[in-house]
Amino acid sequence: MSIVELMPQQDMIVWRRHLHEHPELSFHEVETAKYIRGILDTFPNLEISSLTENSVIATLKGSKPGKTVALRADIDALPIIEESDVTFPSKNHGVMHACGHDTHTAMLLGAIKVLAEMQDKIAGTVKFIFQPAEEEPPGGAKLLVEAGVMDDVDEVFGLHIAPNVPVGVIGIRKGALTAASDVVTLNIHGKGSHGSTPDLSIDPILVGVEIISNLNNIVSRNISPFDNVVISIGEFNSGKTSNVIPNDARIQATVRTNDPEVRKYVKKRIEEIIKGVCEMYGATYELDYLLGYSPVINDSAATDLVIQAANKVVGVNHVVEPPIMMGSEDFSAYTDVKPGSFFILGGGTAAEGCGYMNHHPKFKINEDCLVYGAAMHTQIVLDCLNVE
Amino acid sequence: MSIVELMPQQDMIVWRRHLHEHPELSFHEVETAKYIRGILDTFPNLEISSLTENSVIATLKGSKPGKTVALRADIDALPIIEESDVTFPSKNHGVMHACGHDTHTAMLLGAIKVLAEMQDKIAGTVKFIFQPAEEEPPGGAKLLVEAGVMDDVDEVFGLHIAPNVPVGVIGIRKGALTAASDVVTLNIHGKGSHGSTPDLSIDPILVGVEIISNLNNIVSRNISPFDNVVISIGEFNSGKTSNVIPNDARIQATVRTNDPEVRKYVKKRIEEIIKGVCEMYGATYELDYLLGYSPVINDSAATDLVIQAANKVVGVNHVVEPPIMMGSEDFSAYTDVKPGSFFILGGGTAAEGCGYMNHHPKFKINEDCLVYGAAMHTQIVLDCLNVE
Amino acid sequence: MSIVELMPQQDMIVWRRHLHEHPELSFHEVETAKYIRGILDTFPNLEISSLTENSVIATLKGSKPGKTVALRADIDALPIIEESDVTFPSKNHGVMHACGHDTHTAMLLGAIKVLAEMQDKIAGTVKFIFQPAEEEPPGGAKLLVEAGVMDDVDEVFGLHIAPNVPVGVIGIRKGALTAASDVVTLNIHGKGSHGSTPDLSIDPILVGVEIISNLNNIVSRNISPFDNVVISIGEFNSGKTSNVIPNDARIQATVRTNDPEVRKYVKKRIEEIIKGVCEMYGATYELDYLLGYSPVINDSAATDLVIQAANKVVGVNHVVEPPIMMGSEDFSAYTDVKPGSFFILGGGTAAEGCGYMNHHPKFKINEDCLVYGAAMHTQIVLDCLNVE
Amino acid sequence: MSIVELMPQQDMIVWRRHLHEHPELSFHEVETAKYIRGILDTFPNLEISSLTENSVIATLKGSKPGKTVALRADIDALPIIEESDVTFPSKNHGVMHACGHDTHTAMLLGAIKVLAEMQDKIAGTVKFIFQPAEEEPPGGAKLLVEAGVMDDVDEVFGLHIAPNVPVGVIGIRKGALTAASDVVTLNIHGKGSHGSTPDLSIDPILVGVEIISNLNNIVSRNISPFDNVVISIGEFNSGKTSNVIPNDARIQATVRTNDPEVRKYVKKRIEEIIKGVCEMYGATYELDYLLGYSPVINDSAATDLVIQAANKVVGVNHVVEPPIMMGSEDFSAYTDVKPGSFFILGGGTAAEGCGYMNHHPKFKINEDCLVYGAAMHTQIVLDCLNVE
Repeated sequence: MSIVELMPQQDMIVWRRHLHEHPELSFHEVETAKYIRGILDTFPNLEISSLTENSVIATLKGSKPGKTVALRADIDALPIIEESDVTFPSKNHGVMHACGHDTHTAMLLGAIKVLAEMQDKIAGTVKFIFQPAEEEPPGGAKLLVEAGVMDDVDEVFGLHIAPNVPVGVIGIRKGALTAASDVVTLNIHGKGSHGSTPDLSIDPILVGVEIISNLNNIVSRNISPFDNVVISIGEFNSGKTSNVIPNDARIQATVRTNDPEVRKYVKKRIEEIIKGVCEMYGATYELDYLLGYSPVINDSAATDLVIQAANKVVGVNHVVEPPIMMGSEDFSAYTDVKPGSFFILGGGTAAEGCGYMNHHPKFKINEDCLVYGAAMHTQIVLDCLNVE
Repeated sequence: MSIVELMPQQDMIVWRRHLHEHPELSFHEVETAKYIRGILDTFPNLEISSLTENSVIATLKGSKPGKTVALRADIDALPIIEESDVTFPSKNHGVMHACGHDTHTAMLLGAIKVLAEMQDKIAGTVKFIFQPAEEEPPGGAKLLVEAGVMDDVDEVFGLHIAPNVPVGVIGIRKGALTAASDVVTLNIHGKGSHGSTPDLSIDPILVGVEIISNLNNIVSRNISPFDNVVISIGEFNSGKTSNVIPNDARIQATVRTNDPEVRKYVKKRIEEIIKGVCEMYGATYELDYLLGYSPVINDSAATDLVIQAANKVVGVNHVVEPPIMMGSEDFSAYTDVKPGSFFILGGGTAAEGCGYMNHHPKFKINEDCLVYGAAMHTQIVLDCLNVE
Repeated sequence: MSIVELMPQQDMIVWRRHLHEHPELSFHEVETAKYIRGILDTFPNLEISSLTENSVIATLKGSKPGKTVALRADIDALPIIEESDVTFPSKNHGVMHACGHDTHTAMLLGAIKVLAEMQDKIAGTVKFIFQPAEEEPPGGAKLLVEAGVMDDVDEVFGLHIAPNVPVGVIGIRKGALTAASDVVTLNIHGKGSHGSTPDLSIDPILVGVEIISNLNNIVSRNISPFDNVVISIGEFNSGKTSNVIPNDARIQATVRTNDPEVRKYVKKRIEEIIKGVCEMYGATYELDYLLGYSPVINDSAATDLVIQAANKVVGVNHVVEPPIMMGSEDFSAYTDVKPGSFFILGGGTAAEGCGYMNHHPKFKINEDCLVYGAAMHTQIVLDCLNVE
Repeated sequence: MSIVELMPQQDMIVWRRHLHEHPELSFHEVETAKYIRGILDTFPNLEISSLTENSVIATLKGSKPGKTVALRADIDALPIIEESDVTFPSKNHGVMHACGHDTHTAMLLGAIKVLAEMQDKIAGTVKFIFQPAEEEPPGGAKLLVEAGVMDDVDEVFGLHIAPNVPVGVIGIRKGALTAASDVVTLNIHGKGSHGSTPDLSIDPILVGVEIISNLNNIVSRNISPFDNVVISIGEFNSGKTSNVIPNDARIQATVRTNDPEVRKYVKKRIEEIIKGVCEMYGATYELDYLLGYSPVINDSAATDLVIQAANKVVGVNHVVEPPIMMGSEDFSAYTDVKPGSFFILGGGTAAEGCGYMNHHPKFKINEDCLVYGAAMHTQIVLDCLNVE
């Protein structure tokens, strides 16, 4: 009997559908945490605690001493009005599990149910982390890390479900997997005037145009062609009529990088360009450079463990190496402090109706994937902490 | 007794204050037209007619045959909440005579009162035009011209009151006096995408930035340093969040020129640049290039007549040559079809509290100027149509 | 007999042709000065002196005391290979009187010949200045002024011949007539690299492109539409092969302004932009901002005198007001320190073969104009210093 | 005895030094080819032929039938004045083996010497290709391919020596290894004018500036962050004085891409931008878009063979995966038509004086590397064509 077949598929479907019907926004996952704790209370051998009202930590001490391994699920949902065709849609209008965190939670619960019965096979400790607020910087992972959740952990593992990838396929990559995603918010203050007297103005639209024009040179001229960097302007708003030069302009941008050094350098260049152009035209400004999540960097040894587990769970032919991603993930708060590895789990293809990307109102996954995620969690623990 | 002393100062003050208290927006000057007609009905020797509900035409036939000379006043007000300190503020909240058209109307009425009694001294015909909607393109002047108001006219004259210029000073300039003021409204249609995938987008902010950048080269590189041209961007709006490249961008600009050929050329260049940049980046667009008023071009001979009249009314030392202006005026609809001249009348200095520019909520003029405007109208008629 | 008929036309033609055949470059007009002095030696009543080897000053003291009036001719030629079809071309290959200074010299000599005989009609002193090096900044006028040539002068007058203007027409303008013409020479120092590693370079072509792009915003966005300003890039040189990012780039530009305040402001803006862009990209630079001739500003009273003289010499119908010019002239060194006026003399139309602009290898003038220039000099003196 | 020890080290040093002293430029390698042929003539079992005067092909038929495998060395040198400190510098002043092709040639000769004696162990045919003109597009490889050199070949292998990499280390990478390197040469034709009349010009510097400005947006906005693309401007030349707007401008650029589809797309974008900007400003142009070498794409199976050989020759710990490179190599002409693999051979570190990059006048390699290159050639042949 394979490990996949050991997983409590029906339970996971029930739990996942309940969570899907009762989504809660980042930092507000109080009922979700209660629901998780309620289920955990029915399992043996666990110590259950919380660092915050909207998180749950379950600890399973094995029969022998050993390392401490952490497994993480994120539990928050998004401010999206659901348009999927599932029979158990969100009952909390305007909030939706459109990123699959409901499945992450259910899969970790499934793994715990199995592992809690295998205490005798475990040498060491397993820490199960149900964290809030993955979707909203500064992120729940950072909160828990600051509260000490990683202090006694040796290695940490996690996964994310992926639409457009077949059920039973697992994606694993060493090194950088996700991007740092930083947010630039710039308010330029010029001096308005009538449109017929540009000489009396400090034209904030001109200043904004020159800033964007120069920012576009960073990726093409300052960055090695081998580094992956994106600077995209998402907002430029200034003025509302044809014949008045406005006082101010507002620009927002997203900055994505995969390397911490490059990230720092890009920040420096953006700040230099904004300062340089504003000074050159006599404008002032306020710049808010919000550092988002850092890149998830998968540890080589920990990732070898994940590969070994995946080979057992889905077979070597179903393990693939995904390209580096420009999306971001707050799991990096864990890998910033401890070795770990984060992997991708196939959630179903477009042919199965699972072709909508994360955060889309029609996002959907194929529940057949739940057993593979739970099995991966379980296998990783068994491989890490096996009693000889 | 000078001609200035002949003017009915008290009447003009009463009329002007009534108009100031009862301002009406462009194209809605129905009560204003009725009020004007009511006053004109009390004067002898006039034929009164209307081409529209919100305009009044009065005709005075002289005692002998001769040319037909037209005098024009504009009668509309602006959508501005009055903040001036006059004792007779607007009773129509949100509408204000903030451009002095109340005084223009009163001064023309004053001149008519005087001229109507001088029929015997006039060889030819005087046509007094009270026109609506100077403030809003396509403008009332154009409407009346299309309705035939200029068909039988040989020469046309008008004035505008100016704050910040002393009472008793008159500004006269041959050739171009005002600017053409055209409005460019551009909607750029790109293709949105997530901020991390610029290669999947047609970035409308990029397209807008490059358009503005290239538009700024027109004045500096395509126009003779001797031509006066302004292209100012008053609006650039696109997107509302940091991490999504938007679908569309909206740009508005004002374009001011003093020469009809240059105006055409600038329009052509703007259209070429918008087309060129959009095509270069694969974007589509809608361009609305609204031709506003053309420049008022003062006829040389007609302006000599105004100079001669001004020398008599205020004395040669109070006649000045103003610089060409980048503001616009729909009097050009008359000078586009018939020779004419338009001049500036001092409305009081900042020291007198008359330092707020036209369209300012605190705009104010010194009523002492009324007699000079009326006297100019009268003198011009007497000089043009004098019985030998 | 009109004053024009009094002028020594045949002498002037002989002198002018000799000068045309023997042109000398700026600062090297030694033979030219000797030739002028040789002619002056044949006239009575003059004191002849020199402040430099390549200039001549002749002084005529009138019969009564009075003001001192200066008349100026420039005597240098240009480094141009003559291609005109005159029968007396340059014998100094590669040097050509392509700006008409040969005619200026001949006309002033002609006027001196006449005036030297009219000492009894003159109350005051006339100073005739034959100056070197009008064509090459810092200019001969500045040298002579620094040597004191203007110290005892009350008013100064000069003229320039104009192709494309009919013989017998004189152009006169109060206020600014010519432009300040400043020269910007910029050497940008970046850091070269192989073309495949832009991240290792400080790309001087990029820096130059951004500087030019921003300089083009000065005229369109920082200057009033009523001011006449040109900033033109005449040189951009950097690199010589496709696949190496060069170390350096060189840019030259001409900057033309008609107003001293605007001139200062434009200089400041250019310096700010160059500094701003270089700092923004980490490049260094050397900037040489050579202030060329200032604008010739014609004094109002002195210009009234020129108008009065011109009305007598060519008749009121042949006196025109030229537009302000973007060319420059070192006569400004005189008007910077003393009141004066500089005017334009028609040199013949294209129909007469005189359609090539100054500095063109085919530049030519119609010698019929010589008498008008000489007569203007003479009349101005008689009007300024007439014995009552 | 390892295969490395079998290699004729002293012979290779002698041959290599002779070649180093007698470098010949691309397409002129006549003496070099004669020298190679002279050595080959001393080996048994070879058929020697030439497709061109400056190339040599040697064919070794094995004792049994089988596949045909090609090994390639490039033999040309560079127009560089040698500044290295070797005791056997170039005797052909101004020409230098600064890219190590002398070592490539010597290593292939060494391998042939060994393999020629092992005919009985070979099942199939080995084709040894000494090609001219790797350094100069269109390249010697393309010439030979067009002449049919690959027609009977099943797989092709080659190597490049690398400074800054320790002797005994081998770099191998599947998929794209080098970049396509294309050359853009653009001549812009505007219309010159005096600097004071930009309105009469079509300013080619302005056009060039806007082209470069927009080209810089391609990498930042049109390309996926995961693709490696460089567009670098190496030349911008226009004008030579401050006050004349020139007629023309010349721009050269290098374009590097690692993916054939991206290469096509970038070419299209560059052409669109040049066309768009020129049309927008009324300029004409000539564009020469020279397609240089395509990327070397290493075949997966052939590269597995190279990895296997390297593991034997230097040991698994000395086999590394280099990053994709932005340099180019005409070996792609072979891999464009047949499966093959190209690898990197350590040539010595900076500590050994081998820290100067290819094409540097002080470029140097450590001759201890020669045996590893020859051994790799030999081992690959033995692994490919081994008699069972």
